[in-house]
Amino acid sequence: MSDQVIIFDTTMRDGEQSPGASMTLEEKLELARLLEDMKVDVIEAGFPIASQGDFDAVQAVARIIKDSTICGLSRAGPKDIERCFEAIRPAPRRRIHTFISTSPIHMKHKLRMEPDAVLEAIHASVSLARNLTDDVEWSAEDATRTERDFLARAVEAAIRAGATTINLPDTVGYSFPDEYAAMFADVIVRVPGADKVIFSAHCHNDLGLAVANSLAALKGGARQIECAVNGLGERAGNAALEEIVMALRVRGDGMPFTTGIDSTRLTQASKMVSRITGFPVQYNKAIVGKNAFAHESGIHQDGMLKHAQTYEIMTPEDVGQGGTNLVMGKHSGRNAFRDKLVQLGYELSDNAFQDAFTRFKDLADRKKHVYDDDIVALVDDAAAHVDDTIKVVRLRIVAGTEGPQTAEIDLDLDGTPAWTTQRGNGPVDAIFNAISTLVPHTAVLDLYQVHAVTEGTDAQAEVSVRLTENGRTVAGRAADADTLVASAKAYVAALNRLRAKRQRGADAQAG
Amino acid sequence: MSDQVIIFDTTMRDGEQSPGASMTLEEKLELARLLEDMKVDVIEAGFPIASQGDFDAVQAVARIIKDSTICGLSRAGPKDIERCFEAIRPAPRRRIHTFISTSPIHMKHKLRMEPDAVLEAIHASVSLARNLTDDVEWSAEDATRTERDFLARAVEAAIRAGATTINLPDTVGYSFPDEYAAMFADVIVRVPGADKVIFSAHCHNDLGLAVANSLAALKGGARQIECAVNGLGERAGNAALEEIVMALRVRGDGMPFTTGIDSTRLTQASKMVSRITGFPVQYNKAIVGKNAFAHESGIHQDGMLKHAQTYEIMTPEDVGQGGTNLVMGKHSGRNAFRDKLVQLGYELSDNAFQDAFTRFKDLADRKKHVYDDDIVALVDDAAAHVDDTIKVVRLRIVAGTEGPQTAEIDLDLDGTPAWTTQRGNGPVDAIFNAISTLVPHTAVLDLYQVHAVTEGTDAQAEVSVRLTENGRTVAGRAADADTLVASAKAYVAALNRLRAKRQRGADAQAG
Repeated sequence: MSDQVIIFDTTMRDGEQSPGASMTLEEKLELARLLEDMKVDVIEAGFPIASQGDFDAVQAVARIIKDSTICGLSRAGPKDIERCFEAIRPAPRRRIHTFISTSPIHMKHKLRMEPDAVLEAIHASVSLARNLTDDVEWSAEDATRTERDFLARAVEAAIRAGATTINLPDTVGYSFPDEYAAMFADVIVRVPGADKVIFSAHCHNDLGLAVANSLAALKGGARQIECAVNGLGERAGNAALEEIVMALRVRGDGMPFTTGIDSTRLTQASKMVSRITGFPVQYNKAIVGKNAFAHESGIHQDGMLKHAQTYEIMTPEDVGQGGTNLVMGKHSGRNAFRDKLVQLGYELSDNAFQDAFTRFKDLADRKKHVYDDDIVALVDDAAAHVDDTIKVVRLRIVAGTEGPQTAEIDLDLDGTPAWTTQRGNGPVDAIFNAISTLVPHTAVLDLYQVHAVTEGTDAQAEVSVRLTENGRTVAGRAADADTLVASAKAYVAALNRLRAKRQRGADAQAG
Repeated sequence: MSDQVIIFDTTMRDGEQSPGASMTLEEKLELARLLEDMKVDVIEAGFPIASQGDFDAVQAVARIIKDSTICGLSRAGPKDIERCFEAIRPAPRRRIHTFISTSPIHMKHKLRMEPDAVLEAIHASVSLARNLTDDVEWSAEDATRTERDFLARAVEAAIRAGATTINLPDTVGYSFPDEYAAMFADVIVRVPGADKVIFSAHCHNDLGLAVANSLAALKGGARQIECAVNGLGERAGNAALEEIVMALRVRGDGMPFTTGIDSTRLTQASKMVSRITGFPVQYNKAIVGKNAFAHESGIHQDGMLKHAQTYEIMTPEDVGQGGTNLVMGKHSGRNAFRDKLVQLGYELSDNAFQDAFTRFKDLADRKKHVYDDDIVALVDDAAAHVDDTIKVVRLRIVAGTEGPQTAEIDLDLDGTPAWTTQRGNGPVDAIFNAISTLVPHTAVLDLYQVHAVTEGTDAQAEVSVRLTENGRTVAGRAADADTLVASAKAYVAALNRLRAKRQRGADAQAG
């Protein structure tokens, strides 16, 4: 058995299924590029049959990613599988991931199928997928609550039909590590041909055990782990990619497995996923939390330094946290700014660079010290506003403890100027009322969140807004030294995305 | 061996050591009351020798908590132990927790002591502690990197000297579950008298394995788990109390252990700790995250409902999430408001109730629907402003994309009115500049954070501000429908706390 573990990232599939975490096509492209750079082996980019938007995103990712395998999810029906293949077809390396439930409770209540019919569906679905592509993963949904004999028969059916990867997920997230390891070992011993395929773990974190269960699966014989950046995923999420990668890297003495992941990009990936979804990362989150490497006492630091010389352990630099934080300012030139962007992992087109540089100079005029995080915020902000048809031109606020709170706003609507003054319950409410007056919509505000991007009273604020309309959820983000300006821009960004989604939906219906 | 597991909460000790998580005396009292109500067995309230503030907080907690054992941490020296005992003395149930490092790397570089001297120190420290109180816990710091023979000798020395609980922490957070379980089993077999004491696990989450390691320790023979609400703690934190409690409760079939914890208070505890520290809880955090029980698809919900009938699993109500969310409004009366407070877990004094009711009516006038979270925010806000000597009287903001951002503020300074107008880089910067002009200080702003407490555009905003001055860190929080007003109040709240801390520091020097 190989000691190399395949890292299968499902941030854009299971992660995106987390309520409120939906990603646009552009966001998926941006994240896919980073995952490829990090050397993720398999990127599960979406569930193509689920919607036209999901299909388009998987296809767009398949078109640009060369090194990682692009995977799409599909149920067992032929339409699902064919649609999935169509989406991943442009990718040089492509995988169909098809699944069906095998537990008694799921077969009876969710599928309403007899066990024999499920076995037939496995044979038919995997055979069809294998006719379309050589790389086929089959998952036994709810494997951990499946009768062992039936699970072995189901896995055997999938292998006979040509599956190359067999995934045994802990769908409800209730396994203990020993149980999960034993299931893999048992199935691998029982099933003929099990030595010819890769077994895969997919764990949920409902009891805080997703990482431990995933690692235990390796002991049981699995060689692929399905995980997500920041542990994003349904309910309490999936195993966190960064924790899996670093556990295997740091503790090679205890578990002799390796991954191909470039761990120095883990922090960047964490920040990108947090920004895209608007989901904060808790400070004490393992590996990527801002306190994960913070040592308060000098004695402890001394001990850690000594320890670092003795063992190969983690440093903040290993995971791309900290390191040099050269401060930029108004006297920093174009070359210094370009160097800084490269150092932060950004390679911008000339136009995007020019735009970012202009924003940087503008910020440097208003803010004494421009930190790395400020630059990340302004570049990400620039990248997030590509196709905006609504733009904030001017904003004026009068607010406080007494009297009405008013917002006067000028917008550019597809090139046409529009303005209004509205009152609200607080300045943000007034701003949102003013924008909604100029851009009428029926969306509900799900989330309004402000982060100070860097420290200090003149920190840049990053605002996230999440809107839902007819089941469509969109997020808008913007950064500005002024919280209120960032709020207006974030709300407008969300409305721009909502428009784009409505347009895509209308196209899909018309097409 | 008993199947009852002792839950030892270290949110106020290891948790508070997390950079930026320091708690005031009042906050510790509030949290201690909730932990007692939840039936936490042992509350580690602080490290009394560390500072006068830490001592005072432990002593104050020891004075009010009757049911839970109150524990203080101390190093091995007699001054530490005596100071610790003085702090916990008022408690009906009290424990001294003394520790020393036993790993070669810690003994050599941190302690600069020979192993024999460490054994002598264990004997002396535990004997002294045991002379002061019957309940003595001894910890082998860095146990997981300690030579097994020496660890057994150290544990034997502690037991002979009278220790009643032996803690073997994974100080650096790098253990795997099997290794950690094996260490307990091995030490328990080797050491005479091991069957007469309780063994304890204390795990750190650097690789995402703290909960799995803690549960594995039970298999190895441990019967106490040290954990913290939200997994707060140094670096990536400790094992999360809520995950430990629910794993044992939900999976009694796989691990036959129970705890005495009232799980319906877990969500309240999580929110309280998040509010006190200003540390956000990530949405997909197991058990207490807002998405932890969120199921998107109807099919999935159907499956969960069916499953819930078949097995005894978790529901949101089990952990105090969700449940009824009756909406209150301007027509809700005093009795309805009191009922609602009781339902939310608040029992207020008459004065505090009157204050909260006035704030509620004021909010209901300005906001159509008043949700549970709004009420929690305003009651917590009321509770957090007891001894304010600086008060915000009036605030007026003019801000936007163009022209200067100005804040005009009126404060009440110990009864004396004061006002100023200042400009800033954005409205929040202007507000903070104005307050700092009236209340000069040298503190640095560490954190500025805004949460929308409830959904909707007229949501209440909760603002957290963290300031540091001469190594003292204070947090201020405030809730208001207006983000800017909440920002001003939060900043002033932090300054009030800073004043109180300065005063306590001066008293301690004089005393």
